[in-house]
Amino acid sequence: MTTWTKRHILSLETFTPEEYETLLETADQFREVLSRRTKKVPALQGQVVANLFFEPSTRTRSSFELASKRLSADTLNFTGSSSSLTKGETILDTAKTYVAMGANIMVIRHRQAGVPHTIAAEMDRLEANVSVFNAGDGQHEHPSQGLLDLFTLYQLLAPASPHQFLQGKKIALVGDILHSRVARSNLYSLTTMGATVHLAAPPTLLPKTFQAFLNESFSKQLVCHWEIEPALKDADFIMTLRLQKERMTDHLLPSLREYHQYFGITRHRALLAQDNVKILHPGPVNRGVEISSDLMDDPEFSLISQQVTSGVAVRMALLYLIGTSR
Amino acid sequence: MTTWTKRHILSLETFTPEEYETLLETADQFREVLSRRTKKVPALQGQVVANLFFEPSTRTRSSFELASKRLSADTLNFTGSSSSLTKGETILDTAKTYVAMGANIMVIRHRQAGVPHTIAAEMDRLEANVSVFNAGDGQHEHPSQGLLDLFTLYQLLAPASPHQFLQGKKIALVGDILHSRVARSNLYSLTTMGATVHLAAPPTLLPKTFQAFLNESFSKQLVCHWEIEPALKDADFIMTLRLQKERMTDHLLPSLREYHQYFGITRHRALLAQDNVKILHPGPVNRGVEISSDLMDDPEFSLISQQVTSGVAVRMALLYLIGTSR
Amino acid sequence: MTTWTKRHILSLETFTPEEYETLLETADQFREVLSRRTKKVPALQGQVVANLFFEPSTRTRSSFELASKRLSADTLNFTGSSSSLTKGETILDTAKTYVAMGANIMVIRHRQAGVPHTIAAEMDRLEANVSVFNAGDGQHEHPSQGLLDLFTLYQLLAPASPHQFLQGKKIALVGDILHSRVARSNLYSLTTMGATVHLAAPPTLLPKTFQAFLNESFSKQLVCHWEIEPALKDADFIMTLRLQKERMTDHLLPSLREYHQYFGITRHRALLAQDNVKILHPGPVNRGVEISSDLMDDPEFSLISQQVTSGVAVRMALLYLIGTSR
Repeated sequence: MTTWTKRHILSLETFTPEEYETLLETADQFREVLSRRTKKVPALQGQVVANLFFEPSTRTRSSFELASKRLSADTLNFTGSSSSLTKGETILDTAKTYVAMGANIMVIRHRQAGVPHTIAAEMDRLEANVSVFNAGDGQHEHPSQGLLDLFTLYQLLAPASPHQFLQGKKIALVGDILHSRVARSNLYSLTTMGATVHLAAPPTLLPKTFQAFLNESFSKQLVCHWEIEPALKDADFIMTLRLQKERMTDHLLPSLREYHQYFGITRHRALLAQDNVKILHPGPVNRGVEISSDLMDDPEFSLISQQVTSGVAVRMALLYLIGTSR
Repeated sequence: MTTWTKRHILSLETFTPEEYETLLETADQFREVLSRRTKKVPALQGQVVANLFFEPSTRTRSSFELASKRLSADTLNFTGSSSSLTKGETILDTAKTYVAMGANIMVIRHRQAGVPHTIAAEMDRLEANVSVFNAGDGQHEHPSQGLLDLFTLYQLLAPASPHQFLQGKKIALVGDILHSRVARSNLYSLTTMGATVHLAAPPTLLPKTFQAFLNESFSKQLVCHWEIEPALKDADFIMTLRLQKERMTDHLLPSLREYHQYFGITRHRALLAQDNVKILHPGPVNRGVEISSDLMDDPEFSLISQQVTSGVAVRMALLYLIGTSR
Repeated sequence: MTTWTKRHILSLETFTPEEYETLLETADQFREVLSRRTKKVPALQGQVVANLFFEPSTRTRSSFELASKRLSADTLNFTGSSSSLTKGETILDTAKTYVAMGANIMVIRHRQAGVPHTIAAEMDRLEANVSVFNAGDGQHEHPSQGLLDLFTLYQLLAPASPHQFLQGKKIALVGDILHSRVARSNLYSLTTMGATVHLAAPPTLLPKTFQAFLNESFSKQLVCHWEIEPALKDADFIMTLRLQKERMTDHLLPSLREYHQYFGITRHRALLAQDNVKILHPGPVNRGVEISSDLMDDPEFSLISQQVTSGVAVRMALLYLIGTSR
């Protein structure tokens, strides 16, 4: 049994290499469970996982729901639209209500950065025996996405080099860096595990001051580019980010077509990278915008399907670790 | 084993003291189950609880869903918005469909008073082996809310006086009495169990004729006030009711601020009551309207969190009693 | 153990008499399970049934959900409105995401004909170990509805004549034939099993060319009428179809009242049929339009409630057959 001390999963900024390793090993065990005929374990039987999605997301909610059910937990779903929030209740009061009902873990998504932290702090102050799991807060962090990306790389690289599997790797992270919670979580995990991350985006989505906001321990393994070519050059992995269409109406981008022309990943551009380069995307993909449609469907290049599968294993691991260490 | 004869839970108007006692004792046992590590019992395994919420309510639906799952029942959720009602089907036909599918218990919320009664009557006429559970019908009744409030008081008082725990108690019931199904259910349970209930509300929300509509067995332990002070004076408990914002547009109230000024529970007003007075609210609370925010968060005064927890135990007890006596 | 070779349930057009028989016998066994006190079997434990309802339907989704739960499968629900489709993802990508998460069976409803087939073809091309279940695609097919209707007739007739129970029977199929996926699925199953089907509808809903589009093996047992009387004459069963109100705005029908006057099933019209004629309707019924209200509620005539019950047994059987033969 590993020891796990984090009660809440809020951010990867404070994850240690040991915590990443524990998580990866635990996820690996659940990956093995998922390959069995019967994919359930009784680990969280009788526990309640409440999915509080103040910002709707079918995909992520389904992944958490399935991970919970495979650990034999009971699940409760709450989505913003059908909520009592419209009745004027505060978010903290909603959270307290679910804790009073018996929720052991609250998975929270909110369009405002910091909401899961605020809820977790209040729960700790009240000495409530509950874990808070950030499933995406505004443009801040999306830790389980960062960890499932890491686990996807781990599964590919660990058989050859189980330790320091990312040491010396070059990873291109392309797209709407500024507004992406996925980018932020990935930055923390990838650099902590030894990779060098090359960011590539137009200046409107990657301001000069971006790096200055990061702690030096992360920023020293970061390189920023306003063109895609130097980021892709000899890259081992290309991580693309979803482009929100709102960026166009915000006047940060002229058009999807122009974005694709300058920053879209195509078969031709992929030739700049290592021969066996692999491509990741957190989904859902705008085909022909972030990635060309044929490249996305090529199993030689695309890890997108593996990422989704990793998502269930990683969320099982995280729910297991916080659910059994309380 | 207790004997339970009510097939449906429709109203507290007809509950006898013996039925209240059976319910309270059963809820107490489930409260004990909820304190265990594994909070599930197999009592309703294989039974189906259908939550038919023609008027949406995440909070109440979650409480029923969790209670059902902890009794190992399967649950089906139906909400008005995504319903075939928009396709022109009658409510009775929807209910019959769920019974034909195999629902054993139908938990029904509807904005119109009497809908659960009508459905129950029709099911009995058809000799359908199903129980109907009123989860709030218009401005009529919300029996499980009345019972969870009663159970919250019972838990506090029963250790000292297990029998007649409400005898001689003064309870202030403050707010939108006229339109509140919670008020109505509470009136029945509290007076039947021996408390004296002092209603306090502005005349628009507590018309002169209100008392005349109640059966004498309830109304003789009722006192009505159009000011809050006489209701709070020496009260053992203060029950506040949620203020619907629609009351403003209905021109029944000038403003939330004015309501709070005259009927809001503040620390200063609470001094009128007994020293150890406790405050209840069915939730969700409009902070600073029905109760001042600091009082609501003070565990010395507020029983709001306990009410939510009681809700799961009481609904488990009710589902258990109707689900195992059929 | 029966052998079952269909991986997907897409259409009844290709069902063989042997497949119908296997399905009916399996459904019969599950019907027996549903009459037990504990209505669950562990057949699909650990499997995941994803209900992907791009077109919402509470009734059908609940039936599939309950069937899945009674087979002990885990269920995931997805409805169009809360989906990432609004985020620009293609339907195929959504399906692939659910497969990557671990869905074993995808139940798909979509307003466009052919979507389930397209998804199934793509899944086969990718060699994904998943079954696709068409829960209604546009105006094309709704195979489980066709099979539950067949099973409802089977339960009634099989005790007397277990083999060839539909041989020589006359079935009137009345209503919006042209736009009905239910009609299409019923045509295939009823004629294959030996019945003669008499279609009756106004010309706008039953064009002259309708029959020409069907394979001769089905159309030779079909008779078309633009009046209801010849279809009802000596009929053993009357199947009515739901009238979509959109047909009025499409100018295909003048009014609901006129439709009822010419094609509604009334007690008087039912006298044209066999003495013990029974009436079916896929629900939800527009009372007083397709069927007169009193006839619908008369258990001597109406099989509507049995159809709903059959729906759960038939869906359990289908999920079981595709879920255990993979």
